Amino acid sequence: MRQIGIGLAGLGTVGAGVYKHVAQNRALLMERIGVELVVRRAVVRDPSKARVAGPSREQLSTRWQDLIDDPAIDIVVELMGGIDEPLALIRAAVTAGKVVVTGNKALLAEHGQEIFALAAEKRVPVFFEASTAGGIPIIKTIREALIANHIVSIHGIINGTSNYILTRMTDARLDFAEALAEAQAQGYAEADPTLDINGWDAAHKAVILASLAYGFWVGTDQIFVEGIDRLTATDIRFADELGYRVKLLAIIKADAAGPDGTAGSGGIEVRVHPTLIPKHHVLASVSGVFNAVRVCGDVVGETLFYGRGAGQDPTASAVISDLAEAAISLGGARGSYGFTPHGLYGNCRPLEDIRSRYYLRLAVDDKPGVLGQVASILGRHDVGISSVVQPETHDEAGRAQLVLMLDRASHRQMQSALEDILRLSAVMPPPALLRVESFTT
Amino acid sequence: MRQIGIGLAGLGTVGAGVYKHVAQNRALLMERIGVELVVRRAVVRDPSKARVAGPSREQLSTRWQDLIDDPAIDIVVELMGGIDEPLALIRAAVTAGKVVVTGNKALLAEHGQEIFALAAEKRVPVFFEASTAGGIPIIKTIREALIANHIVSIHGIINGTSNYILTRMTDARLDFAEALAEAQAQGYAEADPTLDINGWDAAHKAVILASLAYGFWVGTDQIFVEGIDRLTATDIRFADELGYRVKLLAIIKADAAGPDGTAGSGGIEVRVHPTLIPKHHVLASVSGVFNAVRVCGDVVGETLFYGRGAGQDPTASAVISDLAEAAISLGGARGSYGFTPHGLYGNCRPLEDIRSRYYLRLAVDDKPGVLGQVASILGRHDVGISSVVQPETHDEAGRAQLVLMLDRASHRQMQSALEDILRLSAVMPPPALLRVESFTT
Repeated sequence: MRQIGIGLAGLGTVGAGVYKHVAQNRALLMERIGVELVVRRAVVRDPSKARVAGPSREQLSTRWQDLIDDPAIDIVVELMGGIDEPLALIRAAVTAGKVVVTGNKALLAEHGQEIFALAAEKRVPVFFEASTAGGIPIIKTIREALIANHIVSIHGIINGTSNYILTRMTDARLDFAEALAEAQAQGYAEADPTLDINGWDAAHKAVILASLAYGFWVGTDQIFVEGIDRLTATDIRFADELGYRVKLLAIIKADAAGPDGTAGSGGIEVRVHPTLIPKHHVLASVSGVFNAVRVCGDVVGETLFYGRGAGQDPTASAVISDLAEAAISLGGARGSYGFTPHGLYGNCRPLEDIRSRYYLRLAVDDKPGVLGQVASILGRHDVGISSVVQPETHDEAGRAQLVLMLDRASHRQMQSALEDILRLSAVMPPPALLRVESFTT
Repeated sequence: MRQIGIGLAGLGTVGAGVYKHVAQNRALLMERIGVELVVRRAVVRDPSKARVAGPSREQLSTRWQDLIDDPAIDIVVELMGGIDEPLALIRAAVTAGKVVVTGNKALLAEHGQEIFALAAEKRVPVFFEASTAGGIPIIKTIREALIANHIVSIHGIINGTSNYILTRMTDARLDFAEALAEAQAQGYAEADPTLDINGWDAAHKAVILASLAYGFWVGTDQIFVEGIDRLTATDIRFADELGYRVKLLAIIKADAAGPDGTAGSGGIEVRVHPTLIPKHHVLASVSGVFNAVRVCGDVVGETLFYGRGAGQDPTASAVISDLAEAAISLGGARGSYGFTPHGLYGNCRPLEDIRSRYYLRLAVDDKPGVLGQVASILGRHDVGISSVVQPETHDEAGRAQLVLMLDRASHRQMQSALEDILRLSAVMPPPALLRVESFTT
């Protein structure tokens, strides 16, 4: 199978994740894109540093120029951080005709215009899914999935640190300093959290989203940015009493004039600030370090995309999806024309074997001992009971309702147990049997 | 600009939407894909039927074979409904080398294996974003954005009619028959709602998602399907008391053995049934006709995608995104290497002009007349008050808190009003001024 050579600039958290998952999911990726992705070289600051996994010592270099000079490298992945060096690397890579994948939001927010002008001139693609909202494929979604749409507005919870702090201020009634300290202890905030809490991390991502949606580069001096650092627990509590949650939102809107949502003035607005949003809105239920981006299009209406906005694995997932696009632009192919067979799975498990938790409601005679009978049948079939409720209400026939929450059991076990239960004279059919899902996977 | 010819099979709700939006967003689409999409011919049952907008009478035909025979048609869009005719059309189109776009979930669930085998043999792409979850780009997301992942599980609310009925049974305590009647009156359920309420509409979509995620075609006889038609208001109420919402979920899971989520047995499970889910989970907040699909990947972790699952415009958005992919497969190009400039927008509005609703909290002396002073200043600056709360609590300095929810005003207005308010001797700085967003766009 044809190999595509990758040069990794940066082996920090995300770079190491990319290396690991390209190796681990190698077979799957080959089936899905028809070429093999091979990391040929990585640039690091200190090659002697011990690493859990990664390229061999011979593949490490301290000079990014080595990635440009190596003819076996087709794709340069920039995950260095900072501005000047990554900018020099990307300029050199594009000029040398090497496809670029970057996750550097600050760089794009400040130099995106120059980078994409050069990319267009040299006809070399630059991919940047990992720059915004981590594992949420918001760049691909706006560029490709919503291609039929004028974007009416974008509302994003795109800083996980701020969202964690606000969630804890709301749920545990902590004040800002307490919540920040907790976020740092949990590893959700850096030792220097400045860019997260002053809103500028979110602002960089907002500039990228706005530029992508509206087709011109928005200057960082043209937007309004306010962080969560001056927010008080008092206002979060009052907002709660008024029916609102406080979220750090990036808000991007076209100055809509027409009924189709297109701009009258050609103007857009871009801002990042703590915002009260109605509790019942789905964005209000985005908690902890999760991110979410709501996009309104003139054709599709309201959409929302949710996931982890940072961290090694989610960000690596985004980088690798860009690597797949890059490989396809270099001659790979998305397998089999709309549907990719692969070798890992091949059968459906029979219903009888499928395990689930259950909610079971029975109409029973209102007399002692019925629960004991039901419980002993369940026990005999090895079905655990996690809780029992006997509501006060009776049905029209005067029967009591017995509601049981049951532990995980197979369909087979549950059906056998239920058959036996329905043989009890104190139990009247039909029972209500519903499955319960708690999203552990 | 090069033209790509489209043949539309079906001009029902979705077909008419595709025609309308391809025409309305023509300029934008040309900028974004570098070719012009032109509907050359449409197949309808009755060409004499009056239509609000659509192709001219000469472009209408009653025979789908005319789409195959027309050499100016590059892409066939199948939106006819049914099974036999669409299958014959797609077979003929692929055989003739015409790219296919279809939104026919029942057809793919039953004949997907054959269709994609033919597509692979003839090397002709078949796109099907509109087949599942309407405006939510779940097919593209699983195929492309999550390409680095083994899919651990998929949980979908993918039948809007059922979700509307369940939402009304929960929020308004209606019983099933009442909620169904309301859904029909609102146009959210068809006169014959069988496939929606017995779970099979969702099941067809689940088969497509499972097949896409796991690389083999799942038979409709291999899955467990139970609809919402036997669900009682009683169980919804008890579930609520226990902390759960009831949703019709499609659940697809690999039989995970390894810590990386890959299947031990190579087996998967596919089922559709009413399911209790914890109230605090973001899926529980998906209300009314909205759809949502949660996807867990071994690399990306938990993600969720939300939007309208049906209707003319959202589904047209999905069809047109496939048309763009199809056009690109025929030689179009996604503009400008990662970033698409276009002509509609070009400036950021100054902050001073940006309008928003506000939450304003002031620490004030606890004496009569202060609210009147504040209100008259706001009135002078033309800032409306939508509500006022004076909480019982006082701050450490013994001052009362005055909380006002304000109507939409520009930043300029608000700043001037605030300056004047802070000149009042009864008001102590700092004020807390937060913006309020209610997602009307």
